[in-house]
Amino acid sequence: MKTLRTVAIVGVGLIGGSIGLALRKWRPAVDVVGVGRSPKRLKIAEDCGAVTSWSTDMAEALAWADLVVVCTPVDRIVEDVRRAAEHCRPGTLITDTGSVKQPIVEALDEGLPGDCRFLGSHPVAGREKSGIAHAKAKLFKNRPAMITPTENTRAEDAGRLRAFWESLRANVYEISPAEHDEILASTSHVPHVVAAALAAAIPEGFSGYAGTGLASTTRIARADAGLWMPILLANRANVAKALERFETQLAALRASIQAGDGEQTQRILALAQGRAEALRNAE
Amino acid sequence: MKTLRTVAIVGVGLIGGSIGLALRKWRPAVDVVGVGRSPKRLKIAEDCGAVTSWSTDMAEALAWADLVVVCTPVDRIVEDVRRAAEHCRPGTLITDTGSVKQPIVEALDEGLPGDCRFLGSHPVAGREKSGIAHAKAKLFKNRPAMITPTENTRAEDAGRLRAFWESLRANVYEISPAEHDEILASTSHVPHVVAAALAAAIPEGFSGYAGTGLASTTRIARADAGLWMPILLANRANVAKALERFETQLAALRASIQAGDGEQTQRILALAQGRAEALRNAE
Repeated sequence: MKTLRTVAIVGVGLIGGSIGLALRKWRPAVDVVGVGRSPKRLKIAEDCGAVTSWSTDMAEALAWADLVVVCTPVDRIVEDVRRAAEHCRPGTLITDTGSVKQPIVEALDEGLPGDCRFLGSHPVAGREKSGIAHAKAKLFKNRPAMITPTENTRAEDAGRLRAFWESLRANVYEISPAEHDEILASTSHVPHVVAAALAAAIPEGFSGYAGTGLASTTRIARADAGLWMPILLANRANVAKALERFETQLAALRASIQAGDGEQTQRILALAQGRAEALRNAE
Repeated sequence: MKTLRTVAIVGVGLIGGSIGLALRKWRPAVDVVGVGRSPKRLKIAEDCGAVTSWSTDMAEALAWADLVVVCTPVDRIVEDVRRAAEHCRPGTLITDTGSVKQPIVEALDEGLPGDCRFLGSHPVAGREKSGIAHAKAKLFKNRPAMITPTENTRAEDAGRLRAFWESLRANVYEISPAEHDEILASTSHVPHVVAAALAAAIPEGFSGYAGTGLASTTRIARADAGLWMPILLANRANVAKALERFETQLAALRASIQAGDGEQTQRILALAQGRAEALRNAE
């Protein structure tokens, strides 16, 4: 397997910056080159030790990259991967970190300029905060990182990408793009939609009386609306299916409460309690 | 104002135990007597310093109480307050800590045996964990504690109860029982219902891929089903109204996603983001 000497990160926000910090921490021999549009943000990334060098010029930044990680918003990934392929050395492996995989992989799987190859990634490690200021080396530690090979993926590339995420201390899963998007609709996108609807439904004057429970239930709705909109739109078919499952559960619980049926209400709450318990490990 | 010398706590779980610990911390001159059915649990409360003495015999435990705080589950409060009134000194003030107020206050406002008086309280300080083992002195610190006087309430009692919760470092609000239940339906009961439906809707095999976002969105659903069932049933009319507001928001967000309307989706998400931001102070 080729030695990883230089990683280029396109987009140094929360995720890109955290990848840089994690690489510097656990793979200090690797050079990390930041690429982006804002010199100011790239300078901050350098100052906080997330990149060893940077450029706003893709050709310059990608000249020596062995691996390119595109960490831009979901609606810009396809374009940014194609642009990166035009500027990096022939045969370079390119990955991304988007929360949606199927439309991105479909668009890029057929081949890229310069014999470059795309293989999708998704480190499940977002936060409600975005931007380089909140980046941290341990963002991926013990978190799932999904990689989404297809029939066109070379085993060698999958192995290299797995090793990359494992060196950032993530738990790597290989899964198809379609399966990824179905799972994420349930575990991330619908929870976001529900948390947003919940926050929007609280009359403003009631906020002062809220407890810690509501703050954590709506925490993810504090995430950047501009980053989430394209995720939800790109995965809308799976989001619709997962929302239906949620609404079925909600309707059953609501009906039992309205009927004053204590036994049935408690049965549903107890089922939910067990499921919620199984999700706490992610905390 | 009468000096507070002895407080009796009926039910030494998370809330009762935390009241005891907070009293011992900030009002060390006050005796705290624990009352309950389980000698084992009462012994633990004594061992961890939440009560200075205890008894399973109400008559014995309440003999010297200046204030009785009933911290039992919502469906047992009315009965426990009436029982307490039979055993404490004439004219003793009794309060509770239930998450629902109107049905409880209505049942008890008309008067109690021995000229005792009831005035409802609700410290908004629950957690997903229950039991004395999770009690802590700072549970109420900077949290809302609502007290719910009626036209029958004596100003002196409201003043004493306010001083009591303030000495536990809570932010005290006086509010009508009806208003309390309307607010709590939005800020606590519906979030619980929604979190439970969300947890119940996640296919079991997906749990391993979940991130921290889902863990916090469903955290409150980990709370004891047996404690929550009576809360939701007792406040079902308000829960139904607040659920409607939630469903209206959800339907709007869902429709804009399904229509692929990025502008409208982002507008709703941005509104939710602002509201969720306002709720974070409770964290």
